[in-house]
Amino acid sequence: MTAGWFDYPVRVQPHHTDYAGIVWHGTYVAWMEEARVEYLRSHHVNFADWVAAGIDLPVVDLSLRYRQSLQLGEVGLVRAKVEPIKGIRIVWQFDIQQQETGTTCVLGTVTLAPVDRQTRKVLRRLPPEIQEILQALASDL
Amino acid sequence: MTAGWFDYPVRVQPHHTDYAGIVWHGTYVAWMEEARVEYLRSHHVNFADWVAAGIDLPVVDLSLRYRQSLQLGEVGLVRAKVEPIKGIRIVWQFDIQQQETGTTCVLGTVTLAPVDRQTRKVLRRLPPEIQEILQALASDL
Amino acid sequence: MTAGWFDYPVRVQPHHTDYAGIVWHGTYVAWMEEARVEYLRSHHVNFADWVAAGIDLPVVDLSLRYRQSLQLGEVGLVRAKVEPIKGIRIVWQFDIQQQETGTTCVLGTVTLAPVDRQTRKVLRRLPPEIQEILQALASDL
Amino acid sequence: MTAGWFDYPVRVQPHHTDYAGIVWHGTYVAWMEEARVEYLRSHHVNFADWVAAGIDLPVVDLSLRYRQSLQLGEVGLVRAKVEPIKGIRIVWQFDIQQQETGTTCVLGTVTLAPVDRQTRKVLRRLPPEIQEILQALASDL
Repeated sequence: MTAGWFDYPVRVQPHHTDYAGIVWHGTYVAWMEEARVEYLRSHHVNFADWVAAGIDLPVVDLSLRYRQSLQLGEVGLVRAKVEPIKGIRIVWQFDIQQQETGTTCVLGTVTLAPVDRQTRKVLRRLPPEIQEILQALASDL
Repeated sequence: MTAGWFDYPVRVQPHHTDYAGIVWHGTYVAWMEEARVEYLRSHHVNFADWVAAGIDLPVVDLSLRYRQSLQLGEVGLVRAKVEPIKGIRIVWQFDIQQQETGTTCVLGTVTLAPVDRQTRKVLRRLPPEIQEILQALASDL
Repeated sequence: MTAGWFDYPVRVQPHHTDYAGIVWHGTYVAWMEEARVEYLRSHHVNFADWVAAGIDLPVVDLSLRYRQSLQLGEVGLVRAKVEPIKGIRIVWQFDIQQQETGTTCVLGTVTLAPVDRQTRKVLRRLPPEIQEILQALASDL
Repeated sequence: MTAGWFDYPVRVQPHHTDYAGIVWHGTYVAWMEEARVEYLRSHHVNFADWVAAGIDLPVVDLSLRYRQSLQLGEVGLVRAKVEPIKGIRIVWQFDIQQQETGTTCVLGTVTLAPVDRQTRKVLRRLPPEIQEILQALASDL
């Protein structure tokens, strides 16, 4: 791991690929979600507990740049980083590499915002314990 | 349509395929689910209303036999049929064909059972309006 | 349909949703892909023929803005539009609405570039028949 | 691990779930595929090499019995076992448990058959190196 980045490796399985023999472009959306959840878990946060407590963190913005493809059997290394928190939006950066070569295959940015699970309304502020954790992640060295 | 069968056509899209250039074997599970929901809708039942009313119909048993593959761009014709209701279990038969040739590609059987959404406990009996609809489907001619 | 937009409706099925009871955010990537393929088909182009001819059109850039969620049983209307072609990049705009209300739920932009299927290298220019079709789509009124 | 079983744990991620807040029933098909590939890898076999060598192992038969659901954040332990090889069919048994409690949630059987990737025709016999590996797995103690 490099300072500030959380590394989440994923093996390319048959169900991740499409007719072109490479990872289908939508698959990375799932991998980035898994990396976010596991990054939190590495800081002793179970995302499911937030959901059970009535808070959800839906994606409000997502962008991906595809540079190179990943093949069946290769390992994609999903590197995730949280930007310093300002306001209620949580911005994640992703650099998905071919693990063996270190080549960047996909670059991503994903923005989340906290909502009340019942009403789906955006919260005015991040719940304190979420804010605290995310600030810890953002300064993860 | 042939007597008793509901026909639900699905075009094979890139995201349905895998590295082999054919429909990934798990994709058919989604198509059969869609066919069940749309069969109900063709009888003026919105499955989402049942869910909102606190009843769910999870799959308790599923089996698939794969005979031939479907390719990108082809149309799969998902043919669905409900067996006459006995007890609380709802048994669906599926015959998924290549629409153009009429060749059977996949045969499936899926069994559902009604549960309470909160407790996930199996209901003792089918709610009357569900039983009625399913009996109508089973005798659909 | 409004001038320039191709409309592709998709019913929200159980497998499109997640624990929050709404469409999972990655599902829209598949819907936008389906809309592109079906837009081409409405102009008598079978995308699978291009693939068989050795040309692929991978996504090189994708961005999504999520404004509102879609629920189980609702219909998402995926509206797609091609921007006028400059060079080899094909830029699609998407406006995914809740069909009944006309509310925009998700806005998307997807950029494709043509590659040789064997080498995965970007082609220097769009094959003439592809260019022609895309120009027709871009001026679709 | 218990004799003969390969254990493959999977964390339930948001994209695995549906509106009911539990793992969507089709998700297990992907998990069982991953477990097969990783079981082979644990015996130094890279499934992608077989595909590159022109051999595919499509699913010809699949059955699942769902007993209990898995929730967001839980770990599913996918236990896989190969039956002794007779002829060309490869039969896998699966027992998917809630890892923490050891409760069986889903039982599965999946049958594969070797085909030529180009022709998709079933091979008359298993290639010797595949047969050898599978016999080793079947007697894995």
